[in-house]
Amino acid sequence: MAERDKSGDGFENKLEGWLLTNIQPLWEFLNRTKWLGDRVNKFIINRAVLKAKPRPHQFSALADYTSWSSLIDRSWSGRHLPARDIAGLLNSNKVLTLFQIPAGGSQRMSKKSTFLFASFAQWFTDGFLLTDPECRRKNYSNHQIDLSPLYGLTGDVTGQLRLKSNEQGAKGRLKSVMRNGEEYAHTLFIPGTHDKKPNFSAVPAPLNMNKPVPLPSGQSDTIFAFGGDRANTTPVTSALNTLFLREHNRVAGIIEKANPSWNDERIFETARNVMIVLLIKRVVEEYINHISPYWFKFRANPSVAWNTSWNKSNWIAIEFNLLYRWHGFVPEIFSFNGNDVPVSKFILDNSLLSGNGLALLFDQASRQKAGELGLFNTAQRLHLVEQRSIEQGRDNQLASYNDYREAMKFPRVTRFEQINGDPQTVQGLKNVYGDVDKIEFFVGLFAEESRQRSAVPSLIGRMVALDAFSQALTNPLLSKNVYNETTFSAEGLKIIESTKSLREIVERNVPRQSKFLASFDQA
Amino acid sequence: MAERDKSGDGFENKLEGWLLTNIQPLWEFLNRTKWLGDRVNKFIINRAVLKAKPRPHQFSALADYTSWSSLIDRSWSGRHLPARDIAGLLNSNKVLTLFQIPAGGSQRMSKKSTFLFASFAQWFTDGFLLTDPECRRKNYSNHQIDLSPLYGLTGDVTGQLRLKSNEQGAKGRLKSVMRNGEEYAHTLFIPGTHDKKPNFSAVPAPLNMNKPVPLPSGQSDTIFAFGGDRANTTPVTSALNTLFLREHNRVAGIIEKANPSWNDERIFETARNVMIVLLIKRVVEEYINHISPYWFKFRANPSVAWNTSWNKSNWIAIEFNLLYRWHGFVPEIFSFNGNDVPVSKFILDNSLLSGNGLALLFDQASRQKAGELGLFNTAQRLHLVEQRSIEQGRDNQLASYNDYREAMKFPRVTRFEQINGDPQTVQGLKNVYGDVDKIEFFVGLFAEESRQRSAVPSLIGRMVALDAFSQALTNPLLSKNVYNETTFSAEGLKIIESTKSLREIVERNVPRQSKFLASFDQA
Repeated sequence: MAERDKSGDGFENKLEGWLLTNIQPLWEFLNRTKWLGDRVNKFIINRAVLKAKPRPHQFSALADYTSWSSLIDRSWSGRHLPARDIAGLLNSNKVLTLFQIPAGGSQRMSKKSTFLFASFAQWFTDGFLLTDPECRRKNYSNHQIDLSPLYGLTGDVTGQLRLKSNEQGAKGRLKSVMRNGEEYAHTLFIPGTHDKKPNFSAVPAPLNMNKPVPLPSGQSDTIFAFGGDRANTTPVTSALNTLFLREHNRVAGIIEKANPSWNDERIFETARNVMIVLLIKRVVEEYINHISPYWFKFRANPSVAWNTSWNKSNWIAIEFNLLYRWHGFVPEIFSFNGNDVPVSKFILDNSLLSGNGLALLFDQASRQKAGELGLFNTAQRLHLVEQRSIEQGRDNQLASYNDYREAMKFPRVTRFEQINGDPQTVQGLKNVYGDVDKIEFFVGLFAEESRQRSAVPSLIGRMVALDAFSQALTNPLLSKNVYNETTFSAEGLKIIESTKSLREIVERNVPRQSKFLASFDQA
Repeated sequence: MAERDKSGDGFENKLEGWLLTNIQPLWEFLNRTKWLGDRVNKFIINRAVLKAKPRPHQFSALADYTSWSSLIDRSWSGRHLPARDIAGLLNSNKVLTLFQIPAGGSQRMSKKSTFLFASFAQWFTDGFLLTDPECRRKNYSNHQIDLSPLYGLTGDVTGQLRLKSNEQGAKGRLKSVMRNGEEYAHTLFIPGTHDKKPNFSAVPAPLNMNKPVPLPSGQSDTIFAFGGDRANTTPVTSALNTLFLREHNRVAGIIEKANPSWNDERIFETARNVMIVLLIKRVVEEYINHISPYWFKFRANPSVAWNTSWNKSNWIAIEFNLLYRWHGFVPEIFSFNGNDVPVSKFILDNSLLSGNGLALLFDQASRQKAGELGLFNTAQRLHLVEQRSIEQGRDNQLASYNDYREAMKFPRVTRFEQINGDPQTVQGLKNVYGDVDKIEFFVGLFAEESRQRSAVPSLIGRMVALDAFSQALTNPLLSKNVYNETTFSAEGLKIIESTKSLREIVERNVPRQSKFLASFDQA
């Protein structure tokens, strides 16, 4: 493979990148220290977030000028850069060819990430990246990491998912059923129909379950009553949601036992406080550290954001929403327990999960490689979604790839070869755009070459870090006067502080297993 | 009058107070400097805000434990201190006697503040201190200084108040009518009825206009179609709202002239951006500086809050709502143009304004002294409101006066005489509470002695400063990437930066006058 032309990377970026991906013994040493490591953690996170201007941004997707509504109404997506004139772009159909696996070719697989990682990304971000299907400049997000795939976006959904009982041993729990000795959410529909069970009337049906054709009833019978309208997307996202359901009920039990006088409401709310922070910690310490190519391991230390200039109200930006379209990660085939399951058989079909249990799902998703992010690598089943993403960038009149490089402190590229060393990618971009300055944001993000030891290319990496840290660490549960034993209970705080991996959470929520994997990194 | 016992004031507070209210030449010098004055401004504001813990607070009025809803759902009022057990308090009827002017006595008048100041406080804070009448732990506030008395709390109200025209000379304007050569809002009701005019169906009727008895139709005919349900409360609050309506339309005209290609929407929104910041600047530089006894004059420099740890989402606290019940300020008699108008004749009756024009209203409200804040000084007409305030403190289970002193870095008082030197106040408090530790927050606030050169007593002053600065200077329009010419237009920014007094705004919005006052300070 040809070498990429690195003349457009920028000296400061190269130096920073070199330092953080070399001198491994120094970073390993810092990873073992508390005081010094905490300071380095804060310093690197601050640098990452301040690569661009902090919120509030001057514009939202509402209009190309600033109004009180554009500063307040978060149903319009936020945006990092102002709208620009987008006349003269090729039809999105044509641009889509850049994502399709060429005839006779096969999908390139990631050298680093498992399908579990890809699924975690999907499940986790589906909690807050919620484009309004009626208007792609709007959203129906709560703009918070609030575990909405599990609890729902609104109180009425949460209410229907809760058990609501003041009996000892049942307080603060989410509704569930036992099947083959394991705990699951109830199914959503009356069997054989697309009618929701009456007590789940407010619980959302899966998004697009009738597009392009209605889900066959064999499949719809496997759909769970989950808080999020995308949590059922694959058996692996459903497994993650089921895991957090079990852990919620387990945590509620521990809190109830230690606080026998508390009522259902207080135990539920305290368990939810614990669960949200448990998720944020896994996101920073396991998920972001998997994405990052650095030797230094980030820490979800709540105090990092307390006194920063970037601890401002969350508001998901349209660019953050789009850069997370990691469709290339989805493998065309999920090799499950010796069987090849094609992607069309595991979308909106939970039978793999219900039939095999949680441990095997995590294990098999950890053994399956994710696809690689990049052009010419998206599974057929996701082409329509890919095309909609291109169009969403246009609906929002996003500035060009080069404009975003500049806004994120990368030099503008002047030659296609600075983006990727792969001749096919270079030729594809040349054919579609002719001029590097015309490359669209969405396409440019994925056209960049994969970096060694990183799960994602450079610009995505920088923008993910910036938005993730500035929205995760500003969660109100991590704030100075809230992150304490009163908020989580003594037992809850202990669970938060002692849990070190997703695998641990799986282990304590499945029947005793001999061996299974639950990992974002390939073995 | 007896001297107050100052042994409970605290050394640091005394020193800070002494420095800021003495060495006048030093402060006057700083007031004239730009660079040094800006730094001193930032330093003093930071000290003022950091007297208590910054947002997010651990609890809201929702529950006595922290939940996701208590951290997110701002329809529940915020709170500085947790709920406490409030058993054993005297009936609120009895406590109310502490506010009543004793039989045969007369109202004490402020030595500093005019009725215009009192009315500005009322009109301005009625934009965001909006207790839900159904549940006094809740509110219907937008939690922002957004000029909602003028524009309404929601888009549908704003829509009905706007002219919406793309004709030259009419773009971006609010609806208005000309009467006696002056511009006013339309009246709200079909004359002789309590039915809203159909095109104002979403515009709120005045709060409590049917309590205790329906407003006579002669009065209801004077009610204006204003965005806020409290903006019509007196002819002086109506005058302030009318002033801001005229200024909005004036500013829209200037912006339209300079930007002939802009449409109605953009001119309206840009004018509103200007108006909100114009208000915030008057609040900090004229209103807060009137309240403060300091020689140093605060500046509404937008950059003050950009990099602070307290620039966090606004959330109006119940304590802030209650400490603003400045009922004692309302004079029993408004001496208007030689006539004595009793309070009962100027509540929900705009005839003084419609009949006399804006300049005379401002002039007369500037010549009328406000009452003094303190016990035994509330006009009869407001006793019911006073009693509801006492009860609201109890509904919210507020901690005691002494607890709030401590939270705000004042020593706890141990003797009644440390609160006030006035024997009647001391005796009244002793009779009602017996023990200083039992004094309620609401009563303690107003029991404190007035300070020289300050419009309000100590604890109110400290808490007002803290909440006002931390909610005004965090307005998104003042933020780093928003406060610029793009947001306000060049002409709008010039209006913001060149306007130095409320009087100027009046002057440019009334027919040419020989002389009139518009002042918070008594002449």
